[in-house]
Amino acid sequence: MTHLVAVGGSDAGIAAALRARELDPSTDVTVVLADEFPNFSICGIPYWVSGDVATEASLAHRTRADLEAVGMTVRSSTWASAVDVDRQLLSVTGPAGEEQIAYDELLIGTGAEPVRPAGIPFGEPGIHLLHSMTDAEQLVAALDLLPAGSRVAVVGAGYIGLEMTEGLVARGFDTTLIQRGQEVLSTLDPELGSLVTAEVRRHGATVLTGATVTGITPAGAGQWRVATTTAAGDAEGTFALVVVCVGVRPVTDLAAAAGAQLGRAGAIVVDEQMRTGVPHVWAAGDCVVTHHRLLGTTWLPLGTTAHKQGRVAGENMLGESRTFAGSVGTQVVKVFDLVAARTGLRHHETAPLDVSPLTRVTVADDHKRYYPGAVPLTISVTGDHTSGRLLGAQIVGERSAEISKRIDTFATALHASFTVDDVIDLDLSYTPPLGSPWDAVQVAAQGWERAAAAANQAGVGV
Amino acid sequence: MTHLVAVGGSDAGIAAALRARELDPSTDVTVVLADEFPNFSICGIPYWVSGDVATEASLAHRTRADLEAVGMTVRSSTWASAVDVDRQLLSVTGPAGEEQIAYDELLIGTGAEPVRPAGIPFGEPGIHLLHSMTDAEQLVAALDLLPAGSRVAVVGAGYIGLEMTEGLVARGFDTTLIQRGQEVLSTLDPELGSLVTAEVRRHGATVLTGATVTGITPAGAGQWRVATTTAAGDAEGTFALVVVCVGVRPVTDLAAAAGAQLGRAGAIVVDEQMRTGVPHVWAAGDCVVTHHRLLGTTWLPLGTTAHKQGRVAGENMLGESRTFAGSVGTQVVKVFDLVAARTGLRHHETAPLDVSPLTRVTVADDHKRYYPGAVPLTISVTGDHTSGRLLGAQIVGERSAEISKRIDTFATALHASFTVDDVIDLDLSYTPPLGSPWDAVQVAAQGWERAAAAANQAGVGV
Repeated sequence: MTHLVAVGGSDAGIAAALRARELDPSTDVTVVLADEFPNFSICGIPYWVSGDVATEASLAHRTRADLEAVGMTVRSSTWASAVDVDRQLLSVTGPAGEEQIAYDELLIGTGAEPVRPAGIPFGEPGIHLLHSMTDAEQLVAALDLLPAGSRVAVVGAGYIGLEMTEGLVARGFDTTLIQRGQEVLSTLDPELGSLVTAEVRRHGATVLTGATVTGITPAGAGQWRVATTTAAGDAEGTFALVVVCVGVRPVTDLAAAAGAQLGRAGAIVVDEQMRTGVPHVWAAGDCVVTHHRLLGTTWLPLGTTAHKQGRVAGENMLGESRTFAGSVGTQVVKVFDLVAARTGLRHHETAPLDVSPLTRVTVADDHKRYYPGAVPLTISVTGDHTSGRLLGAQIVGERSAEISKRIDTFATALHASFTVDDVIDLDLSYTPPLGSPWDAVQVAAQGWERAAAAANQAGVGV
Repeated sequence: MTHLVAVGGSDAGIAAALRARELDPSTDVTVVLADEFPNFSICGIPYWVSGDVATEASLAHRTRADLEAVGMTVRSSTWASAVDVDRQLLSVTGPAGEEQIAYDELLIGTGAEPVRPAGIPFGEPGIHLLHSMTDAEQLVAALDLLPAGSRVAVVGAGYIGLEMTEGLVARGFDTTLIQRGQEVLSTLDPELGSLVTAEVRRHGATVLTGATVTGITPAGAGQWRVATTTAAGDAEGTFALVVVCVGVRPVTDLAAAAGAQLGRAGAIVVDEQMRTGVPHVWAAGDCVVTHHRLLGTTWLPLGTTAHKQGRVAGENMLGESRTFAGSVGTQVVKVFDLVAARTGLRHHETAPLDVSPLTRVTVADDHKRYYPGAVPLTISVTGDHTSGRLLGAQIVGERSAEISKRIDTFATALHASFTVDDVIDLDLSYTPPLGSPWDAVQVAAQGWERAAAAANQAGVGV
């Protein structure tokens, strides 16, 4: 009987544990986690804060009882502090004090933690981070005490910042979103990001773009003064509450102390089978470097990837030799009535590759215009002008337009190393209420091909 | 200057003409069509009949003026009667009488025509087919004269029959759908088709399954008596109007007389570049055999395929050498509030292949259950138990569930010859309102893998 121990009770750790138990029900599995929230959907936190999700408990992918029912030992409120690699012992401090847990194979799934920019008084009432369930509980409690109409600020307009802005607007707060980039959602090209910026404003939030927070200081009566600087000059505003969502960094102390190497963005180096190189120590999830099918090694912490890496680790810890097939960087977010999605690389992100990127934006209807409810999709396609290979795609449009699954067509094509031309050849589904004989993704691919042909005729570099 | 002539003004002919003009604007293109409806969306007819589409004219993908603006000569109400292959002349009869049109390259895109079962008095008032715009005009005119609540029958529960049933119910008719198969939509497995049958009944239509029409005879006062036979015995009903939608067959007279060979289902044999083998004569669309990436040659008339084949022909008629990449049989239909989609092969359809098919049905939520509006998808995956290769998928669920684009993920995977396991590895998009960390298509792929593993352990054939 193999004894697997996973440090971390989120996507990677739980996926590894579940997969191991699935493959060999005799496996003894212990999951060690620092809080009381095993297998919670961190991505769902903004929807609990917003009120779309009624109870905190419903954010659990599986309850603790579910996990225990499949034979997992869940040790919550337990900190893993050190790994004795030679003796295969994990030191932990839990409700019963310090102890050591013997393992045959150890998975480190310590995840990521929020970046805490200097000059922001974290820990003070009214200043919030949003990453863990504990963060969420504190934020919800604070918001419940604020009168509707109170001024609140969100710093950072990435996925979480945008989802939080939507939730705060839905709860009736006077919400300001402060974004350093030219547009919100800087993971998209500004041409597409500007559609999202407009959507946030259309729903009544104030959006400051090109704005850097230079300080947050008390303004009296429990209020906070947020100072920002932009190209147009400095400004400040007063808010009852500030939520800071400016990204995350990998949590690697335990792994590093155990002898694991750190790489991209300080994340734990693992091979494609999730080995750290330290004997019997594996790692997966937001704390490790990401194998990317186009870029090689990068760092791209996402729940989807963590699940897959954890599953791979769970198999390999039992002696299998499964390989993580690699990310292509697929991401999607709903922002009010819009959906914005991307996969693969943007034009400038192809720099490490030996390619001649060409990017073309096309607007195409989601379904036949004669059928009620047709809406335009803005689709950017990036391909290699030399080989024709598809490199990436971005789509923004209304929620009804099945954008998330349309980006999946591009993601699947990227996984298969297809050319843009191959996308035109795909036998995609069509019925007038849901598509067109050439689906919008193919209209965009044809637009890219025309741009490539025109560039060839012009004989110019692109 | 090349002179291309296309016979047929629907998807294949127009796609070829457009592509040729796009690649070489000096190309002289003439499109000959029998009616006055060039480039109309035949797939949209049920939505005009239903009233979802307000005007007949809006069913045109492009207007005649659009086509002429890109340099196409459109000769409508013109019958092509013979091809003189040696002299490269097409004989036509049009408004100005008989004449011959010289061509450098000829595309035959004569499409398909509805099957007319014996015993049905086609041509009589109240007995309708639904394939051409003229059919649609006659049907709409007849329906406009019928009082709401009149009893109408639809014979055949394929895509058009189901869409017509929905449209007739929407218009307030007392509608009966008569289907020979065990369930409606016999292009799906009965387990999934039964969900669609239930949906049609839920919306108030009567559905007779396992029922064959044995005769339609006058019942007096403009009514028709429809006699059916089932395993349970014979029955009959009286209807004010009957629409017969029992499939189509290829229109091949012109091509056959020109010397083209006929193959599967009597369709014109073409190579993958859309050559008929007759010098300078090409063919595309519903009238030709279909290259299928799994089956080899079959016949599967679909608008999406016709567009692609036409585009290929348009390039090759100008001397290019593009290959039609092949269908994988992707199809989708909306039926009231459900969407049903398929791609690839069903279990029994794999018989011509050297595979050991295994089929598994999985039910998975379209998005995280904690976010409002989650609905279950029923997904059937067929794969080769020996090689693991994906062979096909079917999905049925609510319209909100982005089913059409989810089948596209499977279709793209089939195009890439992926295994079921490869689908699990795909980096698909995720955000709680629109998906799950493992998308429903991946949950279904995992379900298939578990079934395959269980069958292996049991050591039994499947």
